[in-house]
This record gives sequence, structure tokens and C-alpha cells, in this order.
Amino acid sequence: MVNYNPKDWFTFIFRIHKSDTIEKLWPMLISMAIYSGIISYLELEVWQLSGKGGLSNLSSMHGLLGFVISLLLVFRTNTAYDRWWEGRKQWGALVNDCRNLAIKLHAILPPGNPAREFFRTMIPNYAFALKNHLRNIYHPADLEEAHDFEPTAVSHDIHVPNHLAAKMLQEVHTLYRQNIISGDQLITLNNDLNTLTNVCGACERIKNTPIPYSYSAFIKKFIFIYVMTLPFGYVFSVGYYIIPMSVFIFYVLASLELIAEEIEDPFGRDANDLPTETISKNIRKHVGEIL
Amino acid sequence: MVNYNPKDWFTFIFRIHKSDTIEKLWPMLISMAIYSGIISYLELEVWQLSGKGGLSNLSSMHGLLGFVISLLLVFRTNTAYDRWWEGRKQWGALVNDCRNLAIKLHAILPPGNPAREFFRTMIPNYAFALKNHLRNIYHPADLEEAHDFEPTAVSHDIHVPNHLAAKMLQEVHTLYRQNIISGDQLITLNNDLNTLTNVCGACERIKNTPIPYSYSAFIKKFIFIYVMTLPFGYVFSVGYYIIPMSVFIFYVLASLELIAEEIEDPFGRDANDLPTETISKNIRKHVGEIL
Amino acid sequence: MVNYNPKDWFTFIFRIHKSDTIEKLWPMLISMAIYSGIISYLELEVWQLSGKGGLSNLSSMHGLLGFVISLLLVFRTNTAYDRWWEGRKQWGALVNDCRNLAIKLHAILPPGNPAREFFRTMIPNYAFALKNHLRNIYHPADLEEAHDFEPTAVSHDIHVPNHLAAKMLQEVHTLYRQNIISGDQLITLNNDLNTLTNVCGACERIKNTPIPYSYSAFIKKFIFIYVMTLPFGYVFSVGYYIIPMSVFIFYVLASLELIAEEIEDPFGRDANDLPTETISKNIRKHVGEIL
Amino acid sequence: MVNYNPKDWFTFIFRIHKSDTIEKLWPMLISMAIYSGIISYLELEVWQLSGKGGLSNLSSMHGLLGFVISLLLVFRTNTAYDRWWEGRKQWGALVNDCRNLAIKLHAILPPGNPAREFFRTMIPNYAFALKNHLRNIYHPADLEEAHDFEPTAVSHDIHVPNHLAAKMLQEVHTLYRQNIISGDQLITLNNDLNTLTNVCGACERIKNTPIPYSYSAFIKKFIFIYVMTLPFGYVFSVGYYIIPMSVFIFYVLASLELIAEEIEDPFGRDANDLPTETISKNIRKHVGEIL
Amino acid sequence: MVNYNPKDWFTFIFRIHKSDTIEKLWPMLISMAIYSGIISYLELEVWQLSGKGGLSNLSSMHGLLGFVISLLLVFRTNTAYDRWWEGRKQWGALVNDCRNLAIKLHAILPPGNPAREFFRTMIPNYAFALKNHLRNIYHPADLEEAHDFEPTAVSHDIHVPNHLAAKMLQEVHTLYRQNIISGDQLITLNNDLNTLTNVCGACERIKNTPIPYSYSAFIKKFIFIYVMTLPFGYVFSVGYYIIPMSVFIFYVLASLELIAEEIEDPFGRDANDLPTETISKNIRKHVGEIL
Repeated sequence: MVNYNPKDWFTFIFRIHKSDTIEKLWPMLISMAIYSGIISYLELEVWQLSGKGGLSNLSSMHGLLGFVISLLLVFRTNTAYDRWWEGRKQWGALVNDCRNLAIKLHAILPPGNPAREFFRTMIPNYAFALKNHLRNIYHPADLEEAHDFEPTAVSHDIHVPNHLAAKMLQEVHTLYRQNIISGDQLITLNNDLNTLTNVCGACERIKNTPIPYSYSAFIKKFIFIYVMTLPFGYVFSVGYYIIPMSVFIFYVLASLELIAEEIEDPFGRDANDLPTETISKNIRKHVGEIL
Repeated sequence: MVNYNPKDWFTFIFRIHKSDTIEKLWPMLISMAIYSGIISYLELEVWQLSGKGGLSNLSSMHGLLGFVISLLLVFRTNTAYDRWWEGRKQWGALVNDCRNLAIKLHAILPPGNPAREFFRTMIPNYAFALKNHLRNIYHPADLEEAHDFEPTAVSHDIHVPNHLAAKMLQEVHTLYRQNIISGDQLITLNNDLNTLTNVCGACERIKNTPIPYSYSAFIKKFIFIYVMTLPFGYVFSVGYYIIPMSVFIFYVLASLELIAEEIEDPFGRDANDLPTETISKNIRKHVGEIL
Repeated sequence: MVNYNPKDWFTFIFRIHKSDTIEKLWPMLISMAIYSGIISYLELEVWQLSGKGGLSNLSSMHGLLGFVISLLLVFRTNTAYDRWWEGRKQWGALVNDCRNLAIKLHAILPPGNPAREFFRTMIPNYAFALKNHLRNIYHPADLEEAHDFEPTAVSHDIHVPNHLAAKMLQEVHTLYRQNIISGDQLITLNNDLNTLTNVCGACERIKNTPIPYSYSAFIKKFIFIYVMTLPFGYVFSVGYYIIPMSVFIFYVLASLELIAEEIEDPFGRDANDLPTETISKNIRKHVGEIL
Repeated sequence: MVNYNPKDWFTFIFRIHKSDTIEKLWPMLISMAIYSGIISYLELEVWQLSGKGGLSNLSSMHGLLGFVISLLLVFRTNTAYDRWWEGRKQWGALVNDCRNLAIKLHAILPPGNPAREFFRTMIPNYAFALKNHLRNIYHPADLEEAHDFEPTAVSHDIHVPNHLAAKMLQEVHTLYRQNIISGDQLITLNNDLNTLTNVCGACERIKNTPIPYSYSAFIKKFIFIYVMTLPFGYVFSVGYYIIPMSVFIFYVLASLELIAEEIEDPFGRDANDLPTETISKNIRKHVGEIL
Repeated sequence: MVNYNPKDWFTFIFRIHKSDTIEKLWPMLISMAIYSGIISYLELEVWQLSGKGGLSNLSSMHGLLGFVISLLLVFRTNTAYDRWWEGRKQWGALVNDCRNLAIKLHAILPPGNPAREFFRTMIPNYAFALKNHLRNIYHPADLEEAHDFEPTAVSHDIHVPNHLAAKMLQEVHTLYRQNIISGDQLITLNNDLNTLTNVCGACERIKNTPIPYSYSAFIKKFIFIYVMTLPFGYVFSVGYYIIPMSVFIFYVLASLELIAEEIEDPFGRDANDLPTETISKNIRKHVGEIL
């Protein structure tokens, strides 16, 4: 995630950050400029079409469909942002959950019990394993060793977060059978242990389910046809100014689609992605403080 | 579900996927082209109406109602998408729930207890039975045998997911009466067992409740009249260009309605439907890893 | 509720269903046509106002306010639809709840215990009683007898769903005192018993709370003035075509308000109302299968 | 709350209810009419500005900003309505909660136990106390006496709903210590007792937190400047018709802001406010029926 | 937070509050006026461009993109407001939670037990510590001493709210081991203790996660280019009136972005921020009344 000061307008407007959409769009913007230039040249100089024909009024179509395309892009923006924000909420829930688990286990486990050490290591391990799992990798160096858990011994084929959650739950039920955790305390821990798996499932859902294919295909086709037909009619009223005008309109519409694509899957390493690495480190720090 | 790379614009724009709306709409698009052509020919050549009459200003009506139709289609898109996404969330909840059940039963049941085998089979069976139930079929080959459960013996008349949930709950309460599951552990399992039935009910609700009839009828009538009256006025300003223009406008409006219809019931086998088959297989894989 | 195939466009467009808004609006549509005709005749033939005066530009007001009225109607549509859909969700929750109750009681109660019979009858009775309660009637023939419950003996004055819920809860606590239901099992049943009353309260809330009076009055006044002033200005540009144009615009705006009014209270017997009768029957069927 | 039949259009359109915005706005509407009249007179008769100058095109600014102002007012409407509806939901939750408490206590407490009488009085007392608390008054006559509770003895300084909730919780824990309420039953009562305080807190939050000051100030300034500059440009195209036109536009924009202000705090005695008085009485009636 | 009377329009419109956006924007508004003046002077007087060229129709681009920019700003407004309102809800949840904790502990703990004193001090301490934590400070003078807790002894490096929550939870589990709090009572307290940490985590999430960088950068670039190009085309139709017109349009668009930036992080000391100081004091008052 980019850390930034939202109030510094100057930087925003004049600096082109590497995650800016201009960075990715500029070849298409130049093609767009050339394309509009050719259309204008043909219509105005070669064929010398007069502005009285029907073609010059085609722009009324762009006016009519301007609502639809704007609303569709807002729909696209909203759904993409909702996933990004839901992803953030899930990681926020993970943070809360790890803290609650640590606080409760600290109050329940007697001082010196080796299970304290086990949970101090394993709770943050879960966060790191989930972070990597959502990037489709398994990186043992991120995890720390605990009694009965050896990061490098974990097979790459299995679902690592599930494996860690199962280990923690087994430890809790073992302590319950040893009467170190009472039945009432087990009940109070239950929800927190469930949440680990719920967060993992919700993040997988966000990652694996982009917006339905039909919408994605339709929006792209719509933008393409809309922008490609733009110069036909407008060239008669604005002349060669159609070149910056269609470049700017294309920039606006395509940027919205591009940003939506990027933030839709918020667990990678893109500039707008969630700081899962930092959150995992904070979990390790705070759990260490408490337990 | 179509697996696709949302960043590959070229394919999106030029390839016509079998689930594209153009595939379904082309006969209507051609009819629309012929219809606009006839209207234009009649108005311009046969009746030779001049562009000064009131008819040429009818297009102001389309401008005024352009907002309403756009906003209605966005309402339609939002409600359809919400069902699709809620369906996905419910199946995500099922995944989480099956994992939590497996993780807990793994920690609770003593090694070697035959109930482990029972739940390892029955939890994924529930997912497969639900998938088929939502497609109105019962397909015993998808389910696996367990002690006390024989897929081919299940009657086609009954509600299969309910039947499986009842079997699992009965097993849990039998283990509780045998003191293999303690009272505290029963309480921690309760929510997970409830969720099975809640997911099933929510999916049935989405499947059985399309958008109210009045909206569906009104939106279709509105699009039809809107597009049919489009050439009357615009023909005077754009001439024969009205043909591609009304085809494109019709394509945009009808596509939105068509996609909404398709994703509204997300449990079938359409290109945009949810991958319930794959999810069920993953549940079987992950429950097998844990239990 | 109307059962329909959302993909059958032809029927939607050309058939006028009895729940269509045209069915209710046609007297107003005809009045609107006559009214616009008179205004046009007066302005064009009697007073022979020229299209140069200020009146002909009054249509710019309709353009400006076109946004506001569209957005207001979408607000109206969204809030009405949300109530309809929340009503559906509540009945879906009732279905889930009845199934969960039945599944659990089936696992808890020993075979042959008379309480099985009691709950097999009373759980579906609750759904039927709620359905009738939301229609302000009490219809004993819908309910079935159980030991200690005689439908015809219930007073019409009392709140019947509460009465049934109290009976079921009393039975559960009696079984608890008899140690047939253990304390742990009581805790797992608690939520399901609460939900019965929660669903009832939520449905009463939806039924008794229409959109605030001020909005309802304001939207109707706004539509009325908007449509009534429409012919004044537009008649100069579209001539007598103003008649179908203002009829169509009135049809669109009034339909949205009319549909919203109808689906706002979804528990009656209107064409768009929820199928509470069918849902209640399904609850009786499924509870009977399980218990 | 005004009880009304949403389908009676005639009354809505022609009757001016005392809660109608026209009732409050008419002095401003008249000022607006005079103001537009003066501007028109000056521009048309005194300075005799021709419609060719730049001023006559200023109306394009109103077109451009028409979207923004409409969308802002919809934002305002949505947030105000959400508070009103959330307030209604909270009171609905209170109703459900009081019923569930009564149903459970009826099943738990032995017949004749004096605690039945206590809760029969105190549960409805809570609703009445909350209703008055949200109107910043304490009105002992609304409350009924119970053993150990004397309405007139309550100090006006303290937080009365908290005081009542604390009394009820104390009674429950006393019964628990006397073994009249078992531990399992205590757990099932816990959530219902929490909800009393949660409803109170949520209502206080709605009441004490209007929309951020900046939005309120900005929307009012924006409407004011927008409407004040309206006659400058439009007078050239519509002439003296600008007077009704700017009055109507002002009526529409200001009404939306006015209604939003009124329903934002839904716990008072305004025409659109929630019927908290009636709901409290219903709670007393239904709790009396059950307990 | 500014306390204000939302019905006092006069003050809103004519008084410029220090938190008004005009206060911050005026240097930019003056620059905008100068810039438009220069462009107008160049186009009209120096280059004497006629209004027939293409440049004068560039304003159609601003019309087309007017939808997009309005909808984007509404998206921005909605997301910022949602964070503000979620922040308020979280503090409301904290209020409810502290009251519920106090009410329950009052009913559970025997009179005179020193733990009463401990919780009477520590529950409000948590609110004050959270308030300061969200402002990145630690201010021991806000906290009160309790047995086993010395505000000035707390290290500045650790996470203070976590530290306080851990202390409270430890006290509860100690009382549980001493049988002063029974197992059933422990279960009923569990949720309330979890909520403390959940509120803290949710507030940290809101504070640390502004809207994705790409949107923030894109919206600012878009507003900038949109407003900068505004005078080019409009100058031909409105003449020097372009100066107030572009100043006003810039004022509207930039204000929306500015307000959104301010309320996005609602835990500081800005005029629109939440009254966390007052809420904390109320918690101390109400907990003191109860416990």
C-alpha cells in the first residue's frame, strides 16, 4: 500500500506515481490520439464532409449513453472498492481476533505453562501463513518454530492456514482435557478460534471471485465502441480539438476500469494492495507484548 | 464460471465468448437494424417529412427519460449482482463452516473413533447434495457411502440436504450422550451445525425469488417502447446513421437486462454461474486433509 | 407472487398482466392525453402563441429537474424493494429456523416421546399463524391441534404468534426440568427459539412502517406538477406529439411510484407479494419429513 | 407518525398537510418570487440587456451543476432516511427483545413467584423510560410501580434507562443465586438483557449525531447560490416565466433538505417521527398477555 | 464536533465557520479567478478567436464528463461518510459495552468487593486510553489509578488499550478462579470483554486505511484538468462571466473532495471529528452511576 498524505494536492496533481493509471495507459492514449487525428483528417480534409450531414449529430448518441456508461463505471467502482474494503475488514477482524485470543490465553494459562510459548508463536504464524497463502506461495522463513511445529516440515501441497488452525485447536482441546482450560473458558475461546478460519475463507472468496465475466466483457466492449465512435460526430463541432478531447475522455473511462481491476484483488503486492505484510508484523509485535 | 484474466483487454474486446450477450441478441439486433431502416426510409424518402415538424423534436423525450432508464437498469444490475454475490458469500460460509467443523471434530474425537470416518464423508456429501439440490436434481454418484448412510437408498422425494444435516446432528448428539463429546464441546459445535441449514435456506431463497414481477415487466416494456420510438425523431438529425445508433443503444440496454437475468440465479451451469462443483470438490479435499 | 420466466421477453412486452401498472393507470393516462390535447389546442390554435416567447423555453426547467425526479424515484424504488427483500429474508430465516429446530429436537428427544408430536405440529403452526397475523386475520382452520393446544380455543384478541412461541418455550423448559433436554442442549436451542419472535417482530415492523409521510406526499406532488407543466413548453417544439409524449412520461414516473407502493407491504395477497402461504406449507412438509 | 394510505393520490396532491414542506417554506417561496421578479424587471426593462450577451448562457453552469446538486441531495436523503429507518429497527429490536424476555421468564419462573410481577412491570417501564429519555424528559407517570421500584423516587439527574436495566439484571442474578434461574437459563437470558442497553445506546447515537457540520453548511450554501443565480441567465430565454420556475426549483431543492432535517432525529413528536409512544404501549400490552 | 442547529439556515448561509471549506480554499479560488481572467482576456482580446471555431464547442466535453465527475465525487463522499459513521458506531458500541459491563459486574460482584472499585476505574480508563491512542499520544493524566494499575508507570512503547484490556480480563479470570464469578457468569461477560478490543481494532482500521491511493490521485487529477480546461470553451458563450462561473464550479468540486478528506479520519480534533473526548467523559459518568 502507498502511504500518502491525502491533503497534499500539489504532489497528487503533478507527480506521476508509478501506480498511476497514466503510467499504464500512455501507449493506448497515444494510439487514441493518432486514431482521432486520422479520423479528423479524413473527415475534414480528404472527404470534406460538411457539418450539416447526419454524421455530425451522432454525438447525441454519446450524450444519451453518457449516463449509462457513467453509472456502469460507478457500479464497477463500487463493487471493486467493496471487495478491497471487505478484504481490509477481514484483516482487521484477524487483528482483533489474534489480540483477543492472546489476551484470553494470557488470563487463562498459568504462568510458565509451555502452551503460552506455543500460542505466542503460532497465532502470528497464522497471519503470516495466510498472507503467503493469498499470494499462492508458502514461505517457511516467515514462520517461527514452536514445539510440535516445524515450518520447513510442512508439505507444500496442503492448505497451510487450515493446518495451523487445526494445530491450535488441538492444543486448546488437549488443555481442556487436562483441565487447564475449563469448559466455560473453552466456550469463550470458541468464537475466536472459528474466526481464524472464517477470515481465511472470506479472503479466498474475494481473491477467487472477480466480477462476473459478462460484466467485465460488456464494460470493456462498451468503453471501446463508445470511445472509438466519439470522433465521428464531434469532429465537426470541435475540429482538431477532438484529439485532446477523446484522449482525455478515454483516459477517464479507462482509468476507472483499470483501478477497479487492480483493487478487486487486494492481497497481492500492487501499489494499492492491502499492507498484509505490515499487519502480520504488527500481530507478532502485539501478541508478543501481551502473552 | 468462466475463468478469465481481467487485465487482458484485447481478448475481451475482439473475442466474442459464447456467454457474450451479442451471441444471444444478434437476431434482435438485426431486426432492430431492419426496423430503423424502414422507419428512416418511410420518413425521409416516402413521406419526405421535413426536419422542422414536431416529430424531429421527439428526441427531447428520449433525453428526459434517459436518466430514468439508466437508473432503472443500474437498480436492476445492482439487485441481480447482489444475489449473485450473496450466493457466493453463502457458499464461502459453507466452506468456512465445513473446515471449522472438521478442525473441531479432529480435536475432539479420539483417534480411531469411527465417527471421524463418518464426518469425513458426510460433511463433503452435504456440499455435493446442496449443489445438486439447487439444480433440482439428486445425483447419488456424487455422494460417498458412510456407515449408516447409503446414497442410493435416499428417496428422491425428500429434501436431501435436510436429511444429511439431520444425520450429522443425530451422530453428534449420540456422541454427546456417550460422553465422547462433552457438553461444552457440544455448545461450540452448535453454531457450525446450524450454519449448514442456514446456507441451504439462503441459497433456496435466492434461487426461488427473482425480482418482483412488476419490475421485470415494467423494465422490459420501458426498454421496448424507448428503443422503438428512438428512430422517429432522431432520423431527422442523424439520417441513416440512425441504424447503427439504434442498434448500439438497443445492444447496451438489452445487454444489461440480459446479464442481470442470467446472474440473478447463480446456481445453474451458465457461464457466469458460481463454481459450486469446484467448491464442493475443494471441501472434500480440505476436509480429507484435516480429519 | 407471480411465477414467471424472466427470459420470456415476448410475453412481458405484449401481454398486459393484471398486476401491470397499465391496468391501474389507464384512466389517468387517458385524462393525461385529454389534458395535453387541450393545452396544445389552446396554445397552438386558440391563443396562437409563437414559439419565440419565454414559454417555449420552460422545457429547460424540466431538463434541470429531470435529474432530481429520477433520483428521487430511484430512492423510492430502492427503499420499497429493500423492504420487500428484507421481508423475504425474514421468511427465509423462519424456514431455516424451523428446520434447525426440527433437526435438533429430532436428535435430542427420545423416540416415542410425545413432545415430538407436539413440536411437529406447533412449529408449522407458528408459520401459518404468522402469515395470517400479518394479514390481520386469525384463521384457526390453518392450524393443527396438538396436546395442550386447541386452535379454535384461542382468543382473537391476543397476539397469536406470541402465544404459540410461549407455548413452545414452555414445553422446552418443562423438558429441561424433566432432564430430557440437558442444560447444554437448552443453550443450543435458545437462539432458534428467539428467532421465531424476531422474525415476527421484523415483519410487523416492515408492515407497519411505510416510507415517511413527507416523502410520499412530496414525491406525488412533485410528479403531479412536473407532468402537468410538461405540455406548456414542449408543445412548441413537438406539436401535437406532446400527447403521446406526456402520456408516456407520466406512465413511466407513475408506474415507478405505483410499484413501490405495492411491494412496500409484501405480506398481503397482491400479485407481487411474497408467497407466505406456500412457504408455510413447505415448512409443514419439511418439518414433517424430519421430526 | 402520520397514519396514511399511500394509495390515495388525490389527498396527497391537493391537501396540504401541516407537515408538508410548503407549510414551512411559503414565506421563502414568496421572497423567491419577489426576488426573481426584481431581477427579471431589472435585466429586461431597466438595463434592457439583450439575450446575446454572455449572461444569457450562464444557464449552462446550472446545467453542469445540476448533477452535483441532485446527487448531493440524494446523498442527504439517503443518510437521513437511514437514520430514521435504523431508529425504527432499534425500536423493533426492543419489541422483539421485550417479548423474548417475557416468553422466557414466563417459562422459567414458577407460577406465583413475585418476580413475575416485577418483570411484567419493569420491562414495559424500560420502553417508556427510553421513549422519554430520547425526548430529554423524565415523566414518572408513564412508569408503573414495582416492588423495590418507585417511579417518583428516581432522581432526574441519573440515566434512567440504565438504572432500570441495572435493576432488572440485579433481579435476574439474585434469582440465579437462589437457584430459581439455572446457569444454563442465565446464559440464554444474557443476550436479551444486553439488547436493552444496546438499543438505548444506538438511539442516543442517532439522536446526538447529525450529519457532519461541513456537509450541512455546504449543501445549504450550494442550494442558496444555485437558486439565487438561477434568474440571471434563464430570464433571457423564459422571460417572466422565470418567476414560477425558480419558485418551483427552490421548492424542490429546499424541500428535500427540509425533510432530511426533520427525519434525521426520529424520536421527537414531529409528524414524521417514529410512534415510540404507541410502540411502548404495545409492549406493555403484549408483555402483560404473556407473563 | 461542531454542535449546531441544523434548522438555522440563515447562519449556515451567511456565516463562514472556521471549518468551512471556503476558509481553506480561498487562495485557490482567487488563483482560479485570475487564471480564468487571463484565459478570457487572451482568447477574446489578444487572439480575438471567433466563437465559430472548434474551441467554443469544447464545452460539450465538460457536459459529457459532468456525469462522471459528479458520480465520482458522490462515491468519494459516500466512502468518506461511511468511515465517519462507522467510527461513530464503533464508539457507540463502546458506550453500550461499558454500560453492559458495569451493569453486569454490579449484579455479579458482592457489595464491598474491591473489584468493583477496580472496574469502576478501569472501564472508563479504556475509553480515554483509546481516544488518545487514536491520536497517537499517551496522556497519563486522563487515566485514573486503580489497585494494580499506575497510569504513569505504563511504557509509551506498548499498545496501551491492549494492556488495559488484558488487565481487566485477568481480573475477571482471577475472580472466576476464586468462584466469585461463576462459569455461567463468565460466559455472559465474554462478549462484552471481546468488544473492547474489537472496537479498538475497528477504529485503528478506519484511521490507518484511507481510500486507495489510485482513487485519491485520479480524482484530484480529474478535477484539476476538468476545471483548468473549463474556460477554454465556455468563454465564447458566457464572456467574462466565466470568472465567477469557474470559481463557483471549482468551489463545489473541491469542497466535496476537501470535506471527504477531513471526515475520512474522524478521530482527530478537526471541527467535524467525533466527540471522543465527550463520549469518554460520559462513559466515566455513567459507569460511576451504576457500579
